[in-house]
Amino acid sequence: MSLKAKPARESFTVLTELVLPNDTNTLGNLMGGRLLHWMDIAAAICAQKHSQRVVVTAAVNNVSFDQPIRLADVITLEATVSRAFSTSIEVCIDVWVENFSSGKKVKCNEAIFTFVAVDQLGNPINVPPVIAETEIEKSRYEAALRRRQLSLILAGKMKPEEASELKAVFGVA
Amino acid sequence: MSLKAKPARESFTVLTELVLPNDTNTLGNLMGGRLLHWMDIAAAICAQKHSQRVVVTAAVNNVSFDQPIRLADVITLEATVSRAFSTSIEVCIDVWVENFSSGKKVKCNEAIFTFVAVDQLGNPINVPPVIAETEIEKSRYEAALRRRQLSLILAGKMKPEEASELKAVFGVA
Amino acid sequence: MSLKAKPARESFTVLTELVLPNDTNTLGNLMGGRLLHWMDIAAAICAQKHSQRVVVTAAVNNVSFDQPIRLADVITLEATVSRAFSTSIEVCIDVWVENFSSGKKVKCNEAIFTFVAVDQLGNPINVPPVIAETEIEKSRYEAALRRRQLSLILAGKMKPEEASELKAVFGVA
Amino acid sequence: MSLKAKPARESFTVLTELVLPNDTNTLGNLMGGRLLHWMDIAAAICAQKHSQRVVVTAAVNNVSFDQPIRLADVITLEATVSRAFSTSIEVCIDVWVENFSSGKKVKCNEAIFTFVAVDQLGNPINVPPVIAETEIEKSRYEAALRRRQLSLILAGKMKPEEASELKAVFGVA
Amino acid sequence: MSLKAKPARESFTVLTELVLPNDTNTLGNLMGGRLLHWMDIAAAICAQKHSQRVVVTAAVNNVSFDQPIRLADVITLEATVSRAFSTSIEVCIDVWVENFSSGKKVKCNEAIFTFVAVDQLGNPINVPPVIAETEIEKSRYEAALRRRQLSLILAGKMKPEEASELKAVFGVA
Amino acid sequence: MSLKAKPARESFTVLTELVLPNDTNTLGNLMGGRLLHWMDIAAAICAQKHSQRVVVTAAVNNVSFDQPIRLADVITLEATVSRAFSTSIEVCIDVWVENFSSGKKVKCNEAIFTFVAVDQLGNPINVPPVIAETEIEKSRYEAALRRRQLSLILAGKMKPEEASELKAVFGVA
Repeated sequence: MSLKAKPARESFTVLTELVLPNDTNTLGNLMGGRLLHWMDIAAAICAQKHSQRVVVTAAVNNVSFDQPIRLADVITLEATVSRAFSTSIEVCIDVWVENFSSGKKVKCNEAIFTFVAVDQLGNPINVPPVIAETEIEKSRYEAALRRRQLSLILAGKMKPEEASELKAVFGVA
Repeated sequence: MSLKAKPARESFTVLTELVLPNDTNTLGNLMGGRLLHWMDIAAAICAQKHSQRVVVTAAVNNVSFDQPIRLADVITLEATVSRAFSTSIEVCIDVWVENFSSGKKVKCNEAIFTFVAVDQLGNPINVPPVIAETEIEKSRYEAALRRRQLSLILAGKMKPEEASELKAVFGVA
Repeated sequence: MSLKAKPARESFTVLTELVLPNDTNTLGNLMGGRLLHWMDIAAAICAQKHSQRVVVTAAVNNVSFDQPIRLADVITLEATVSRAFSTSIEVCIDVWVENFSSGKKVKCNEAIFTFVAVDQLGNPINVPPVIAETEIEKSRYEAALRRRQLSLILAGKMKPEEASELKAVFGVA
Repeated sequence: MSLKAKPARESFTVLTELVLPNDTNTLGNLMGGRLLHWMDIAAAICAQKHSQRVVVTAAVNNVSFDQPIRLADVITLEATVSRAFSTSIEVCIDVWVENFSSGKKVKCNEAIFTFVAVDQLGNPINVPPVIAETEIEKSRYEAALRRRQLSLILAGKMKPEEASELKAVFGVA
Repeated sequence: MSLKAKPARESFTVLTELVLPNDTNTLGNLMGGRLLHWMDIAAAICAQKHSQRVVVTAAVNNVSFDQPIRLADVITLEATVSRAFSTSIEVCIDVWVENFSSGKKVKCNEAIFTFVAVDQLGNPINVPPVIAETEIEKSRYEAALRRRQLSLILAGKMKPEEASELKAVFGVA
Repeated sequence: MSLKAKPARESFTVLTELVLPNDTNTLGNLMGGRLLHWMDIAAAICAQKHSQRVVVTAAVNNVSFDQPIRLADVITLEATVSRAFSTSIEVCIDVWVENFSSGKKVKCNEAIFTFVAVDQLGNPINVPPVIAETEIEKSRYEAALRRRQLSLILAGKMKPEEASELKAVFGVA
């Protein structure tokens, strides 16, 4: 039985966090692990809204931390489902820091988490497909397939030569 | 000025954590974000020992969560530096769950974090090369280069055709 | 020097929180004090965005807790500035619980916090007036004056007979 | 069935808290939300002692924060039941800061919380009346009725003209 | 310069704590380490009040845990200084559990912590002698000397044959 | 039924902790209570591994805190079972601080905790004897008996004249 597709915007989730002393290292910067923790919460709530099921974290795709976040900064995490694959849901998280004096909102991180929806016994269960509406949603929907192929290869569950989407990136026929 | 290389075993770090109620979801399983947080702490301490510098998390490579960890389980995180690239350090983390009745130690996760060593002003600073001694250390040392190329490509800082190590994986001449 | 008025929507702030075991009492319901803590954080961030200053909590107006919030519920706190009085800012917080199976968003609480904007020495400093645009923003803007008068009376800083707005409520000429 | 009245002093509760870095804002002052959290715990324990029942927070009456509390200060919260209304209990909380060099105890806050006693299914259940013995207990016992009327009016459950106690405050016949 | 002696009652400190899920083990009992943490806070505040100085924990004398404390129990920690030795202060902590249905207060633990008062550079500084007034205060004042001798012997700073108070316990001339 | 003895090394447990702002006092030193909390967790996990049972903290023998541990230090706790007495297990904890610039590991604390192994109803249950192999393990195994006698005397469960091991310390025939 296939579930009715749902637009990504319906499960859009926003988390706002204040960086407290215990979240920072000796240089007064937010520790990466704390941000990963918040990303997982934002993304899990988003995946739960989309699937209306309990979800468990299945994977974290590459995350890079490009600029330091400071003590007392307020950060905003925005989570959107990018694509669903039978029982799994990929969620993109955008992290913003707002500067109070200037009022400018600066993007500081991006991450991609994958969740599996489970029933009360913990067994995987089907989730609704995602309807991508905006340009960025559509581009992430496309990229999700490439990421999934890469992840299957790294897990030894797909042969590199079968990864049609990914091979294109390397210019292989 | 190049720094004196150091064996990976000298910065080997062990963290033991007890899964408490606040670390679990409604199914009583450890939430992925909490484990990522612990991984970051274990890996950061390890990178700090190797470099004898303050380190900041630069990236998390793919992490997959294959089996649930339960409330009241005791988990052990073992962090080892795999390779250093001028100012950055890659750390591999192995996560184990010990079963008390049987006494068996089961591996439940693996992760790879990258850190940058910084001086007191937060500027990147050189780190000692890593000497890989055991078989697993050597294999991870080799793989670190492929991961780095992949990460540079994904960040748009390297062209796919320059990624010699990575191209080999896809069978490209 | 008077500051340029700003629309309420510009400092609108959203917090999403997951109710964890340590947040609940023995009946598995969210403890009131934890919710007050989250309300204060949401409202403070909102007041800080409006004033672009550090703010300190000056007062909490009546808060009532009408329905229980359960362990594992996801709650959303929405904070909006309702009105500013020279150095103080009143913020209204609406709290919602989302039901995952039905997807319905139910309002469960409302609260009003007042903050004072301060400079680096902790002295009160002027804040921009608030522009109320929507119907609800306008109604809250009006009510803020009555609440302020009541608060001044209770603090012994205004005589009941001077509270023009408030007297109207009791049908006094 | 009416329960036997109990003196307020029998459920008197004292909480002592040390202000830690994570409890403070960037100016090094205790955040209002953390103090509200502690007030709720002190008051809930007090209401639980009086009723010998599980209690849930029903309302917070106006709280004002007049003077900053500093990092590393030791604060003492004293909670006393002021009056009971069938299934609800009003608790007054006095907050003190002690200065170590001078040894002086300074009052810094006052708050009033209302709780409802519930049975194991969460249904409201009758509580014993409160016996006010000291002068301050008696004065708070009287004021509790005015506060209850105000709270019922604000909740739309009482008409202003029925609030006999409250009308007196505004000099209305 | 000798400081003016102060009665023990002047620094008497009370802490009330609610046992939350994260404080308990898998059997739902308070973990010993959490209770030790609370004991240290209660005793440190008490020693700080007596000395009007910053204090650091120097030693914990034997603590035994005789009966389990349960999830949702409310425990009360009462700390009293028993005796001062130049720069160190011994504090006795009594831990009580209150049963809500019966209203009975049952003693469940006793502990003895020793602190050293320090100046801003962390150097030990003299503290006022303690005046023991009640029977229990006097008995603890006497016992403090025996405990100090035992502690000096165990630390290798006193020879057993010099421990006059302690030898009496073993019936040695 | 007697259980098969197990070597101490099989339950050896390592905990690594990073000292965060909330763990420190106003001088920036780790608070004693937090270290006791970590010691209890390390020792409990160790006792649990040895007994393959749930364990509850029964007693803490004297702990002394000789040198300050600083904010941002990384500390390592090593727990080893020293001896078992029918249903109880004594665990020795060694605490080390590592200096990153020098790479030296300095011992800063030692503690001894005693646990009782319990079944699912919380009743004491027999544990395997401990096999001491190294010199330090053997010396701690011997000392455990003296500590047990002292603890029984202090608890009033043994007469001083029966404490054969302990009397030797005081040179009594």
